[in-house]
Amino acid sequence: MPRKVIIITDPGQDQAVAILMALAAPEHFEILGIVTSAGNISLDFTQKNARKLIELAGRTDVPVFAGCPRPIHRKLVTAEHVHGPTGLDGSDLPEPIVPLQEEHGVDFIIRTLRQLPAGSVTIFSESPLTNLAMALIKAPDIAEKISEIVMMAGAYFEVGNITPSAEFNIYVDPKAADIVLRSGIPMVMLPLDVTHKLLSTPERLDRIAKLGNRAGRTVAGLLSFSEGFDLNKYGWEGAPLHGPTVPAYMIRPEIFGGRQVNVTVEIGSELTLGMTVVDYWQITDRVRNVFYVTEADSDAYYQLIAELIGRLP
Amino acid sequence: MPRKVIIITDPGQDQAVAILMALAAPEHFEILGIVTSAGNISLDFTQKNARKLIELAGRTDVPVFAGCPRPIHRKLVTAEHVHGPTGLDGSDLPEPIVPLQEEHGVDFIIRTLRQLPAGSVTIFSESPLTNLAMALIKAPDIAEKISEIVMMAGAYFEVGNITPSAEFNIYVDPKAADIVLRSGIPMVMLPLDVTHKLLSTPERLDRIAKLGNRAGRTVAGLLSFSEGFDLNKYGWEGAPLHGPTVPAYMIRPEIFGGRQVNVTVEIGSELTLGMTVVDYWQITDRVRNVFYVTEADSDAYYQLIAELIGRLP
Amino acid sequence: MPRKVIIITDPGQDQAVAILMALAAPEHFEILGIVTSAGNISLDFTQKNARKLIELAGRTDVPVFAGCPRPIHRKLVTAEHVHGPTGLDGSDLPEPIVPLQEEHGVDFIIRTLRQLPAGSVTIFSESPLTNLAMALIKAPDIAEKISEIVMMAGAYFEVGNITPSAEFNIYVDPKAADIVLRSGIPMVMLPLDVTHKLLSTPERLDRIAKLGNRAGRTVAGLLSFSEGFDLNKYGWEGAPLHGPTVPAYMIRPEIFGGRQVNVTVEIGSELTLGMTVVDYWQITDRVRNVFYVTEADSDAYYQLIAELIGRLP
Amino acid sequence: MPRKVIIITDPGQDQAVAILMALAAPEHFEILGIVTSAGNISLDFTQKNARKLIELAGRTDVPVFAGCPRPIHRKLVTAEHVHGPTGLDGSDLPEPIVPLQEEHGVDFIIRTLRQLPAGSVTIFSESPLTNLAMALIKAPDIAEKISEIVMMAGAYFEVGNITPSAEFNIYVDPKAADIVLRSGIPMVMLPLDVTHKLLSTPERLDRIAKLGNRAGRTVAGLLSFSEGFDLNKYGWEGAPLHGPTVPAYMIRPEIFGGRQVNVTVEIGSELTLGMTVVDYWQITDRVRNVFYVTEADSDAYYQLIAELIGRLP
Repeated sequence: MPRKVIIITDPGQDQAVAILMALAAPEHFEILGIVTSAGNISLDFTQKNARKLIELAGRTDVPVFAGCPRPIHRKLVTAEHVHGPTGLDGSDLPEPIVPLQEEHGVDFIIRTLRQLPAGSVTIFSESPLTNLAMALIKAPDIAEKISEIVMMAGAYFEVGNITPSAEFNIYVDPKAADIVLRSGIPMVMLPLDVTHKLLSTPERLDRIAKLGNRAGRTVAGLLSFSEGFDLNKYGWEGAPLHGPTVPAYMIRPEIFGGRQVNVTVEIGSELTLGMTVVDYWQITDRVRNVFYVTEADSDAYYQLIAELIGRLP
Repeated sequence: MPRKVIIITDPGQDQAVAILMALAAPEHFEILGIVTSAGNISLDFTQKNARKLIELAGRTDVPVFAGCPRPIHRKLVTAEHVHGPTGLDGSDLPEPIVPLQEEHGVDFIIRTLRQLPAGSVTIFSESPLTNLAMALIKAPDIAEKISEIVMMAGAYFEVGNITPSAEFNIYVDPKAADIVLRSGIPMVMLPLDVTHKLLSTPERLDRIAKLGNRAGRTVAGLLSFSEGFDLNKYGWEGAPLHGPTVPAYMIRPEIFGGRQVNVTVEIGSELTLGMTVVDYWQITDRVRNVFYVTEADSDAYYQLIAELIGRLP
Repeated sequence: MPRKVIIITDPGQDQAVAILMALAAPEHFEILGIVTSAGNISLDFTQKNARKLIELAGRTDVPVFAGCPRPIHRKLVTAEHVHGPTGLDGSDLPEPIVPLQEEHGVDFIIRTLRQLPAGSVTIFSESPLTNLAMALIKAPDIAEKISEIVMMAGAYFEVGNITPSAEFNIYVDPKAADIVLRSGIPMVMLPLDVTHKLLSTPERLDRIAKLGNRAGRTVAGLLSFSEGFDLNKYGWEGAPLHGPTVPAYMIRPEIFGGRQVNVTVEIGSELTLGMTVVDYWQITDRVRNVFYVTEADSDAYYQLIAELIGRLP
Repeated sequence: MPRKVIIITDPGQDQAVAILMALAAPEHFEILGIVTSAGNISLDFTQKNARKLIELAGRTDVPVFAGCPRPIHRKLVTAEHVHGPTGLDGSDLPEPIVPLQEEHGVDFIIRTLRQLPAGSVTIFSESPLTNLAMALIKAPDIAEKISEIVMMAGAYFEVGNITPSAEFNIYVDPKAADIVLRSGIPMVMLPLDVTHKLLSTPERLDRIAKLGNRAGRTVAGLLSFSEGFDLNKYGWEGAPLHGPTVPAYMIRPEIFGGRQVNVTVEIGSELTLGMTVVDYWQITDRVRNVFYVTEADSDAYYQLIAELIGRLP
């Protein structure tokens, strides 16, 4: 039976691939809705991009909501230097026809969770955690409805990408991350420590480009655009592919490895703001609130991506 | 013509007096709604207390909403040691019959402001600023609809009440205060610096008790209860009476004195968390975001309170 | 019997008056040495100024040492805007002939204290606390030799002078202040809360000017210069006279009033850096480490100043 | 020609090996003195341990000084859980006969540097940086006399050992580290990132044990003791060997690899206190103040250790 999920995301090229994977796998994901966030680019783009993606996938049955246009307690930091001005640079998807839902994304989360039994929904998070945190502040009673939060976020040994000590999704809204991390809800974190081991080599991208469908060509185009930043920065043979770790982990957890540890986010100092301090060696007595993933079978990962993208039109 | 106001409050005895004053003065206040906050006591009590007060005043036409049950980014701190377990200790008002509105207080603020022209609503704030800040995060576009925020909050020369450097309304949700203070909306702050000059002496309370109506007896009972804390702490002849400064300032600004200055709230250190740092001597170049009130005519203040409470049943 | 004191100071006009008072009262003060600090102006000036003062007082038997030229852990902030470029602007004292001691001021403190029995020396502090803190770090064993530290420093109700929340002596080296405040040594703090009640009115300065001696004319000239800053800022009838509170308290403690309270210095946030958080209302359980002075008889204060300055050449 | 060095250290087993290497290589090191620090264990032990080591090496010509018994601005944190109660557990060196110098270590640093031309001394640092920072506060003029500071300290990709985000030498005195890192003096940092690649396998320790001299047996005993902690923690085949990286880098820099980068130490938040934030990917414009070593030839490293220890009695 598929898992009920709410996708929270700010597409962005690699988030787009993750969303397409989820849309392609109805046997795994019953998508209750997609809540778009401000993050990689502004909310105006992310909500439009999400609608482009459901049209590309032929899944206009999935409602798309706009969340908050800003983080909880700081100015919005975006990453156009990675994702281009629209967030889907590298593709030529048409302007979407399917409308944005009128309900605010935060309220969609609250209303949907309240209608369902305890432990019935998984949060599939691909962006800063603003909207989930806002829902938890407005309506703390919803926490028990969430069975698990699976999020691409954080870094420890790989330390940071947007600053020398912070990963982007956490850095954009560290207080939202802190609220979520302290919520007591079971959590899986897919950090840079694993995504840096999942490089989009030319062979892997080429395989997707040649799947023979429009979705495959689109994904290859998107990732070819966005990987430029990382290739230039790290000098690697391919770029880390972050977003798809979330659906991949949910479909095939056995190809990942990690530890149940404490993760605490730094909110008290500008220098290390948004750092996810992981007690990986368990040298503190902090509560083990996160399953923190550091290992993955990269061939199986790209195999799964290709398989799911190949199902789409 | 009366000013359109949204009252945000956590009654509490002195907040109750302020609300009753507003309810008694329809020529000054068109109350669009009362949004209740967690603060002096938990939200369960504050929303119920607000309903008791509109019934006492015969103003069940004013809708009461419940806002967030917690501050944005910390555990709720309450003040039962001042206000008693219910927040209206010292009175014997019956359980309210008028129902709580179903809409969330944050959403009421957003919906109401969006329906009105720019600059048409005054926020009348008597509590931590959680709900106003949450509305500004969810829907930043509402800022322009607010003509002014008049709030009882903060302290500078009088420094603090809940800690040696923080006033309670700011301390409970310093990040909400910071969001509001940086919003660019015109603001008037009525801090401990003025309320400590407005002491509820026995004569003043006695006058209210003898107004001859139920509201007068109720107010005198409430304040006699809550002033115990301050009398014991400061050894003064009466307790500071905080909440009524908001309606009093809005009705009779000429009895108050202050300065347009910068106020910045401390959010970075536990020791001084929630301190309102006022650039009273203008020794920095920070923007002057607040009209900060430090002086008042206390006889005129208590005269106004008595007059308004005397109008009620 | 006179008290053995080590004077730590950065003259500065008002510090100069305090030093002259101590030099004029050998029945009260056996001055073991003067350690000069960086603070109001740079160390090059403060050590030279101290030597000018002992020559003016005819007390070249008192050795003068230079301490650290910088605070422990930040850039030096000075106050030439108050004290003028030399720190003794307003006087025309000649270049000093008496030499500076070769020993470092920190080492003089350590060596002197180690030679004496426990509890035998009072620290007479008129500047940032860098040199005393450095001595305590280098040689923690000296703490027991100090009977008391009497310092002009801090502010609570008067909040700040160099920033909206910090007094200058603490702000220049907040970590030094923190080290001293946590040392366990008995302490008396003479803060802005008392000095703002001790205004150098024209009559008071005039009386000193007309004492008939060179010291009196010098003191009047110095204070006339330095009070300009405060008169302009506060619009008062005279400027607070900070430094002389230390010798005045030591000679005539009965003219001062205060409380034994906790004082903790803010070191964790730029906004409130150097604030002395005083638990004046004893609402925390922090240890009462300081006798914090808030009251004084200002006539008796200026009387004492005039009397002692009048003794000098 | 040998380099003039001042060794600053808190032996500790691995520091002991580093000191012995330096004592064994007079063609590389003209040791002006050894200044002992509080760190791994208290100063009482570290100064005694340093004297034991010069006696073991037959180098009683090298003077040993005691520095500060505490960090600049916090309580001393020690690591008896790694090093045992004496710091040289695992050996049976006799109580030393050679006396401790009377001069304070901080003053030895200042006096020595002032007597020499600019750029003539290298600081060889194997401990918290308290004493070097204290010398720079007391006498900032000495900075120009130091050609380079070569220190075992810090971590970035390996993140921390004493906390999840801090390496011990920095964590014990983060403000001292910050003062040194901002001093403008050229610096080489040998962090956990390189020492975690230099494991003391059984073969490597066995080779040292069988060198045939007392020093070899002592070193093997010391390291067998101290590696227990890391073997248990990490489950590796050997423990990282930190201290000897300093003399090894100075003798054979070609076996190490690194980058000139910015390193800034976290001093503003308890969670990440003492973290060395390395701008390894140069994504900020902070000044490149440190040559940060991340690579080493471990066979060459252990070969050098064995060669030098083999020269001793």
